[in-house]
Amino acid sequence: MKNNWIAIDWGTTNFRAFLLENNQVIDSLSEPCGLLSVQEAQFAAALQCLLSPWLAATPHLPIVMAGMVGSQQGWKNVPYASLPAGAGDLFDGSCTFQTPWGSPAWIIPGVNGTSRYGQPDVMRGEEIQLLGLVAMHPAENHLALLPGTHSKHARMHHGEIIDFSTFMTGELFSLLCKQSLLGRDLPQQVPHDASFVFGVETASQNTPFSHLIFSARTRRLMGDVAAEHIHSYLSGLLIGYELAEVDVAVPAWVVGSPALTARYLRAAEVTGLTLTAVDGDSCFLRGLALLRSLIQEKTS
Amino acid sequence: MKNNWIAIDWGTTNFRAFLLENNQVIDSLSEPCGLLSVQEAQFAAALQCLLSPWLAATPHLPIVMAGMVGSQQGWKNVPYASLPAGAGDLFDGSCTFQTPWGSPAWIIPGVNGTSRYGQPDVMRGEEIQLLGLVAMHPAENHLALLPGTHSKHARMHHGEIIDFSTFMTGELFSLLCKQSLLGRDLPQQVPHDASFVFGVETASQNTPFSHLIFSARTRRLMGDVAAEHIHSYLSGLLIGYELAEVDVAVPAWVVGSPALTARYLRAAEVTGLTLTAVDGDSCFLRGLALLRSLIQEKTS
Repeated sequence: MKNNWIAIDWGTTNFRAFLLENNQVIDSLSEPCGLLSVQEAQFAAALQCLLSPWLAATPHLPIVMAGMVGSQQGWKNVPYASLPAGAGDLFDGSCTFQTPWGSPAWIIPGVNGTSRYGQPDVMRGEEIQLLGLVAMHPAENHLALLPGTHSKHARMHHGEIIDFSTFMTGELFSLLCKQSLLGRDLPQQVPHDASFVFGVETASQNTPFSHLIFSARTRRLMGDVAAEHIHSYLSGLLIGYELAEVDVAVPAWVVGSPALTARYLRAAEVTGLTLTAVDGDSCFLRGLALLRSLIQEKTS
Repeated sequence: MKNNWIAIDWGTTNFRAFLLENNQVIDSLSEPCGLLSVQEAQFAAALQCLLSPWLAATPHLPIVMAGMVGSQQGWKNVPYASLPAGAGDLFDGSCTFQTPWGSPAWIIPGVNGTSRYGQPDVMRGEEIQLLGLVAMHPAENHLALLPGTHSKHARMHHGEIIDFSTFMTGELFSLLCKQSLLGRDLPQQVPHDASFVFGVETASQNTPFSHLIFSARTRRLMGDVAAEHIHSYLSGLLIGYELAEVDVAVPAWVVGSPALTARYLRAAEVTGLTLTAVDGDSCFLRGLALLRSLIQEKTS
């Protein structure tokens, strides 16, 4: 049992845990128990409860965590590692402690730096996927897109993250669909490829965002996009706007769930970008396994 | 009493009415009784109730209306006038009817066309302010910014609207402050000029919007903007992003409430734009009075 351990991605809204044996997943958990749902910062008690089926069998399993659990609002405030950041820097910056029930635990730091637009930028959790991507597909340089609530575009060199920029694509999409005039009084939505493609094409025209999105209203008024396809059109606008920032001359990876990466692959066909999809969970587990092996090396 | 009439701006969320005598305001009403608050499309009953103090004294006052009251969701679906559109076109396109209590009524159409970014665009209500602006400040050409939930930038030539573009500045600001991660867990906000200016300057750097706004998170994390100044910073980002689309070589008018135009004037100082503020209500009343005089001319 000595090679069993638990890998955890603990974010603001979700909690995911994997039980591993020799780095193979033998069980997993996914609960809507993100940091916001933890009462009065009782992180240890919450974790013990979530992991109880596994801990009952093996009480002191080592636990390696990443994500917002290491932020100001999380269990431990783990200072960001600075760019450029590789596996060694993340290991060096990790927070080591013992849980009340006796498990050795590590929280891996996030990364901060300056985006390619000169803005301060931060990530927590995606750095693990980036390490995993490099381990799975070794190369001198990587350009990786990690779509999501806050999409990240990262460049890596010799396995180190050298810069990254955040795009609030997923959060803006959700706000515009659910809370804005653009999403008001819509019928049941039906996914529609042509409307998605139309959105991607429209966004490629270098139109300012706050004007661009109003077309989801006017195209509907004019009958160019059906009311039940507005979410597809908006998704195309948002993803197209994000991809317009990527140099089409450089092949890139897109890391995430198959449902999400499929949209980016479809948009890339329209914009002429060469994208290759990689499963986000596989990258996360591979990246955390890499850190786990560093921990074992350095602490044995 | 024959020169008494009622001017109404009836929008989605607000209702405003002015009682005029010889085009001077002698009374006014402002109620949160926009179209969304009218039950079962009982617009006539709602209007009669809202105007009852004035109608009691003079039952058949003529009523001239503009705004979303002329939309699909409004009292009458009045087709848009097309660009280029001047006072004559708006008069020609207006919907004339008699209210159940015997007032002659007109609803002035909105305007549709193609924005300077090639997108379909629409306005309802702002066209009245534009006519009023030209009447108050005659010139061959006007560039006018009408800030708001959906800001409009319009160009006029010889008193006709020749093109316009919508920017969803106000709605995005509200969504980001109230519903997004950027506005979460903020203390009581305090207006702060330096944070506003910093936002305007940051937005002038041609940074993609979905990345730009994330700086409201990272600048707070880094301590560059205090938590109680985040709304000021976001306001600067949003207005700066909108103004970055305006050619600094062309003087422009900004039409709106003093509170709102003051922000645009402050931002224009930062970006080097020459802006002159004009009161939005004055423009609205002047524009609607112009249409009222056309109505009187053509129907007498």
